[in-house]
Amino acid sequence: MADPSAKEIEEGLALAPKFDADGLVTCVATDAGSGELLMVAHMNAEALRRTIETGEAWYFSRSRKALWKKGESSGHTQRVVEMRVDCDQDAVWIKVEQQGAGACHTGRRSCFYRLVPLRQTGAVALDFRDAGKAFDPRAVYDKK
Amino acid sequence: MADPSAKEIEEGLALAPKFDADGLVTCVATDAGSGELLMVAHMNAEALRRTIETGEAWYFSRSRKALWKKGESSGHTQRVVEMRVDCDQDAVWIKVEQQGAGACHTGRRSCFYRLVPLRQTGAVALDFRDAGKAFDPRAVYDKK
Repeated sequence: MADPSAKEIEEGLALAPKFDADGLVTCVATDAGSGELLMVAHMNAEALRRTIETGEAWYFSRSRKALWKKGESSGHTQRVVEMRVDCDQDAVWIKVEQQGAGACHTGRRSCFYRLVPLRQTGAVALDFRDAGKAFDPRAVYDKK
Repeated sequence: MADPSAKEIEEGLALAPKFDADGLVTCVATDAGSGELLMVAHMNAEALRRTIETGEAWYFSRSRKALWKKGESSGHTQRVVEMRVDCDQDAVWIKVEQQGAGACHTGRRSCFYRLVPLRQTGAVALDFRDAGKAFDPRAVYDKK
């Protein structure tokens, strides 16, 4: 079958993910209640399929080169309330109910706990925001 | 200088972006007012530097392999209200004031105008959501 046209990809109703050279699409996870951005990760075809089928978030780790279910180590799974795909189908957005204290492996609720100051030149000094630990990552990840 | 350690990247105050093999980080843009996810794109080092310095969103197009200022064709620029970086510094989040009618080149306010139904197997049929055109892309992009 021929590749779908740009118009089909953008205006059609068939899911036709545009995986990158590594076979991945970007996935953005927000909190279904607050709307807060929790994390950005990647899905391969298998992670995407499992997420759609089960309604639980599965990802593909670029560093470990492995499929993983969110929360398989921490217990902090993500129940997907809604999934959307973007215009060119190389990114998906999931609105999730985050189980457990947080989405970030550092112990925070969100991975985005540092501010980048704007409208300045030269070296950039980050600033912590909403950076309190929601859980102790050592207690969660070292228990196995 | 040695590469920063994982602890420095995650807990430090130095901006140390982890660019991928193509020299890019992922950028998530949300509406600073409503919190709505508008688009997911990429930044190379130059796009990131310009965004920080000017407070206007710059990206790098993977398909065109070119730096671009959001709105340079459409006039629909993005004023960045806040920028954050994630734990491993391979993604940034910008909260923007979207100028003009929409962020998506298809004419929608957001690129995420199609729903992916969950908890089903087999072929996936998307469903339009919030998919009304905020502007006529032909009028905006063909005027040059």
